[in-house]
Amino acid sequence: MNSDLNNWIIKEQNFDINKNKHYEGAFCQGNGYFSVRASFEEGLQGAGQGDIYERSFKSVTTEIQRNPISKWGTYVPTIMGSHPALNEVIINLPYFMDFSFSIQDEKLDMHQSTIVDYKRELNLKEGTLIREFIWIPKDNSCKIKLKYIRFASMEKKHLFVQRIEAEVLEGKALLSLESGIDGNVTTNGYNHFTEMNTNVISDIITLDCKTDIGNRVMELCNLQSKDINFNIIKDEKKILYKGDKAVSAGENYVFEKRSVILTDRDLEDGDLKERGLNLINAANISYEELYEEHRKVLEKKWGISDVKIEGNDKHQLSMRFSIYHLLRSNNEDDPRMAVCAKGFAGEAYYGRYFWDTEIFLLPFYIYTNPKAARNLLMYRYNTLEGAKENARSYNCNGARYPWQSSLRGDEQCSLWEYADNEVHITADIAYGIWHYFSATKDYDFLINYGAEILIETSRFWRDRVDKNKEGGYDLINIMGPDEYSAMTRNNAFTNRMVKFNLNKAMESLEIIKGKDEEAYKKLWNKLSISKEELELFKEIAEKLPVPMDKENNYILQSEDFEDYADINIQGIWKDKSKPFGFFATQEKLYRSKCLKQADALALTMLFKKEFTLEQITNTYNYYEPITTHDSSLSPVNHAIVASWVDNTEHLDKFTDYALALDFNERLGGAEEGIHIANCGCLWQLIMTGVAGIDTAMNETSLISTKTSLPKGWKKVEFKLIWQGKTYKIEAMENYTRINEI
Amino acid sequence: MNSDLNNWIIKEQNFDINKNKHYEGAFCQGNGYFSVRASFEEGLQGAGQGDIYERSFKSVTTEIQRNPISKWGTYVPTIMGSHPALNEVIINLPYFMDFSFSIQDEKLDMHQSTIVDYKRELNLKEGTLIREFIWIPKDNSCKIKLKYIRFASMEKKHLFVQRIEAEVLEGKALLSLESGIDGNVTTNGYNHFTEMNTNVISDIITLDCKTDIGNRVMELCNLQSKDINFNIIKDEKKILYKGDKAVSAGENYVFEKRSVILTDRDLEDGDLKERGLNLINAANISYEELYEEHRKVLEKKWGISDVKIEGNDKHQLSMRFSIYHLLRSNNEDDPRMAVCAKGFAGEAYYGRYFWDTEIFLLPFYIYTNPKAARNLLMYRYNTLEGAKENARSYNCNGARYPWQSSLRGDEQCSLWEYADNEVHITADIAYGIWHYFSATKDYDFLINYGAEILIETSRFWRDRVDKNKEGGYDLINIMGPDEYSAMTRNNAFTNRMVKFNLNKAMESLEIIKGKDEEAYKKLWNKLSISKEELELFKEIAEKLPVPMDKENNYILQSEDFEDYADINIQGIWKDKSKPFGFFATQEKLYRSKCLKQADALALTMLFKKEFTLEQITNTYNYYEPITTHDSSLSPVNHAIVASWVDNTEHLDKFTDYALALDFNERLGGAEEGIHIANCGCLWQLIMTGVAGIDTAMNETSLISTKTSLPKGWKKVEFKLIWQGKTYKIEAMENYTRINEI
Repeated sequence: MNSDLNNWIIKEQNFDINKNKHYEGAFCQGNGYFSVRASFEEGLQGAGQGDIYERSFKSVTTEIQRNPISKWGTYVPTIMGSHPALNEVIINLPYFMDFSFSIQDEKLDMHQSTIVDYKRELNLKEGTLIREFIWIPKDNSCKIKLKYIRFASMEKKHLFVQRIEAEVLEGKALLSLESGIDGNVTTNGYNHFTEMNTNVISDIITLDCKTDIGNRVMELCNLQSKDINFNIIKDEKKILYKGDKAVSAGENYVFEKRSVILTDRDLEDGDLKERGLNLINAANISYEELYEEHRKVLEKKWGISDVKIEGNDKHQLSMRFSIYHLLRSNNEDDPRMAVCAKGFAGEAYYGRYFWDTEIFLLPFYIYTNPKAARNLLMYRYNTLEGAKENARSYNCNGARYPWQSSLRGDEQCSLWEYADNEVHITADIAYGIWHYFSATKDYDFLINYGAEILIETSRFWRDRVDKNKEGGYDLINIMGPDEYSAMTRNNAFTNRMVKFNLNKAMESLEIIKGKDEEAYKKLWNKLSISKEELELFKEIAEKLPVPMDKENNYILQSEDFEDYADINIQGIWKDKSKPFGFFATQEKLYRSKCLKQADALALTMLFKKEFTLEQITNTYNYYEPITTHDSSLSPVNHAIVASWVDNTEHLDKFTDYALALDFNERLGGAEEGIHIANCGCLWQLIMTGVAGIDTAMNETSLISTKTSLPKGWKKVEFKLIWQGKTYKIEAMENYTRINEI
Repeated sequence: MNSDLNNWIIKEQNFDINKNKHYEGAFCQGNGYFSVRASFEEGLQGAGQGDIYERSFKSVTTEIQRNPISKWGTYVPTIMGSHPALNEVIINLPYFMDFSFSIQDEKLDMHQSTIVDYKRELNLKEGTLIREFIWIPKDNSCKIKLKYIRFASMEKKHLFVQRIEAEVLEGKALLSLESGIDGNVTTNGYNHFTEMNTNVISDIITLDCKTDIGNRVMELCNLQSKDINFNIIKDEKKILYKGDKAVSAGENYVFEKRSVILTDRDLEDGDLKERGLNLINAANISYEELYEEHRKVLEKKWGISDVKIEGNDKHQLSMRFSIYHLLRSNNEDDPRMAVCAKGFAGEAYYGRYFWDTEIFLLPFYIYTNPKAARNLLMYRYNTLEGAKENARSYNCNGARYPWQSSLRGDEQCSLWEYADNEVHITADIAYGIWHYFSATKDYDFLINYGAEILIETSRFWRDRVDKNKEGGYDLINIMGPDEYSAMTRNNAFTNRMVKFNLNKAMESLEIIKGKDEEAYKKLWNKLSISKEELELFKEIAEKLPVPMDKENNYILQSEDFEDYADINIQGIWKDKSKPFGFFATQEKLYRSKCLKQADALALTMLFKKEFTLEQITNTYNYYEPITTHDSSLSPVNHAIVASWVDNTEHLDKFTDYALALDFNERLGGAEEGIHIANCGCLWQLIMTGVAGIDTAMNETSLISTKTSLPKGWKKVEFKLIWQGKTYKIEAMENYTRINEI
């Protein structure tokens, strides 16, 4: 291996049918415009992708997934369909990677065929997926060495490139191949296509389809090989190049397939077919040229995003694996989308946006690609009308962001306990806005977009709080980040975030007034702001309580948390390879002192400087033993706080746990997609935990207050953009060096 | 009118298409074995009954009903189907009442045809539904007077009898008729039939079908008329007699149709076809004979069940209307079923059993038909295995009855907040058992069935309570009867009922020991009872709190009720013709001090003697103003307690309200079925409110402590069975006379 690629390549050494879905997610490729799961070009026998079945109404985490051995995924984030029960869901689009070999009656299949020397590698640095193996057909006629390489072009955002090399090692045979576009795909068992057409335009094959909400999607492919002639066959839903060739030992064949995917939702204008043909024709340059222009874009991204970890190669690789998915799943050019909860690497959570974006992902983009961060927040501005509608549906004024957001910003969650009660999302977005502004000083964003969101969300809070007998304010029936407490009273996390939201609405007005009097007046008029409402914002912000256990000096998750029952977590949790929630009913979880994930602790993560080290330590020590980490958002949050409270054992444990989540094939975490929020928060762990650098929310200047290298780590090196300047950070034992570059 | 029938007949004076569904429910007929909604024999144009559509997952009360102008209903309670999302649901069976006239191209239709002198009457005393009108066909060829009479035989439980009389008043015409069995029916838009066949056996037509859980249902009809010959035509789903006749002024025609319905779930054994033929042949006696044998059975039922109200004819009629439905919907011979929430008069609540049975219906049967009461409780014994399974699904021992019970006794409710939290149902059944035992001294039932339920349910409570720091016990995350508080702490109603359940488990053992030592030992061994568990039952029963506001001396609905927010009920409730819940979101209801229905007040209804009059008065005065009565169970409960606390204005108001609920066509309450629990509780109002007779739960002897006649009522007379003896009760102003008869 090229030594440049040391700790850049993830290898699958053997094919294991039970790990297939995990690798389909883990090895997902994409360029922000689209993502594709890492299914084999030829598919897998018995894993029909067009099955129709009924999806349950349960929450994503309790639903028993239909589990075929393989699940294709071809996603363009702005192409969503309408499911009668599940609402808006991302659509699994027609499969353009399709490519299969046959010899006699045997179709090559990784599970059924005789395969020798199998290996598959995801090259994180170059974004390529390479599969190599030797196929010995059942008729023993020959031995063929095959190599597949493919990438989603970072330069040409609609383009996917495949190259297949066949080397006949022994014998001779009639090699047949088929390759095209397969429209026989459903999304979670549901068909979202109302029309589908296939076509041939000179040597290009096309498939275009209409979705159930009326969008048009087009795919075009071009397959080339010097030595084989193809026929094209097609039906309504499938179009294929088909050819065969008598091959003999010593011969080599190369097949190149270029595919483009485009839609009528793209930012580009123009006729779909015309654009499609232009796109596929533009890809008619050499494979090497396509590869090089793609690689260069990715190289630039890595240049600012890479985190170098010395001392633990596994952690190094896994860290890069996380960053790879953060780079692959985000589209910094389209402000109508964000990064969905599964990083567009699977259909779980239906391609929707949660609080994950603002709290767990945004910091990575803020500090490595501010343009991308701004774009993510623009998605929220662009869905402000949906959020206003959502507030009205609760008989409230202002804007209430939905727990599961659609492209329009209306609520997609079909379970009331989350949709109604997990209101912190609205304040989380306010936090995200302020975090971005603090780190970038992007006044243009604050003046033209951010402040409006802050005001409108504050108006929602004004209506959502209840005034109590003592003249104070309460937030009642709240689900905080800990989803095992469904209806709490004055949840500390939520209340603190709401206070923040209200305060920043007022502060943003002051800032704008100081910066641009004209803009200030315009905003005041546009939103019909009144002094009285600002007074009320202030009063509520002051009076809303953040409950503390004063005697023991820790944060109370909620005012009523101590009323819950004790629960014997270890006694109930019979098998730690499964989530705790598998062994306890929801009813039991809801009334017991056990947490799905960090809640009060998440609060300390976001407002570190508001609490004393003793308070953070006490909070950590109180909640950590009763936290099940059934949510993937939890371990890395714990790792960060563990670093602050000098719990090195837990820093090591939770760092290792979070880095293994989607990376370790034994855990199989990537089956239904990537836990992209964990990826984002791992980067925060590097910045705020390992390097001890407080965010721009807590510090006005870039300083490190503490360095905490996990066990075995010698040094961590990464870059960071702070208010327009780029810094090189080196975290070494007991010391973090910060240098502007 | 026969003066005997004064205040026995409910009249519909004009046909109003918008009231049609209401009358289909209100005029529902049945005999316990089956029920039929009061649809017109010929149906209504445009009201297709075989439509397929998707049912929403929402709760029954928030769902927007598909609202065709008519909804047929033919129900045999033990014939349930399986819906992919809604679970077990009662099936709307093929329509055997089908009978239609045509002249030229015009099919008689109550909405489209020219109809004069329409009237329809439900004779409560004789269980007959009579429709009369004059039809003037569009071609003006003639004028025909038609009369339809029909009843579900109380003597022959599988038999439905129809008689149609046609008198040609003017002109002449070719009268065509069709009559048969129509299998083109869905249940709430879903087809539950997997097979359907029609057949002719001599002059009898048959339809048999198989349901999606494999039950077989057969219907047979026999249509007779002296003057007209019929052909029979059929397809797979419909079979019809068809005939026509040239008719002229002065002629009279009579048509008699007899239908039987039977299933392979019937208690009777034997081949379905053979049984069906025997049943239809047994009905081959004169109409007058069939009518008389039917009438006699009903007369006997009314003999013990009637409540005579002097002074308000509307209330008298409405009271009888309620009793009519209680008599019609209950099958005292089949211990595998109870009375569903809609009295088998509609598809809302899917034909399932709730707490309504034990708390609201059972007293009527206990005091007027103990055999029927025992049968209802035997349904719970017969579903004990389902309840045990349900407990296990919550990781608890013992038996946990489901909120919405299937025929097997497993949970059918698809909304977790009710299924998980509304646990009081289990203790309500214990209360029902004890109420029945106290009023009947049926030791056989207690020894062989009741005690086992009491022990097994107590075992569930032992596992469901949480022990707190002070060594006490709590019930956390409880929904009491008030469904606008979803997750409360120590709900007074539930806790008191659970204490009762535990105490009666122990007391039943003591009673059995004293009565039958052998049986006691047998039970002890069968259930592997241990002294330790009984000790624990006792400890929990003692320590579980029933929260009170000590300062103001009223029952606290739950320990956390005072933490809820004040809500401006009157300001929000813009239109009182709609439920309050229509104007407030569930989220707002769940965090506010507003009640859907009586909760603490229901507690006083069940445990009157445990509270002082002052406590009951304070409780009434505190909760009544914040109770929305969005549940139909609420008004009559309020009427009862209002009578106790001398709130005569409210006694009058709530009595009138409860009596109007399904009776008043303006309210349209019967559209989706009868609020049968309200019917049952109206009878309790007569006994415990108006006549002031405490139940056998509160008094060991039959006495009246107070008489409370609503305004305008002069006298109330009814009968009551108390520990085997029958009494005549006469409630007069300030005095209730009780005489054994």
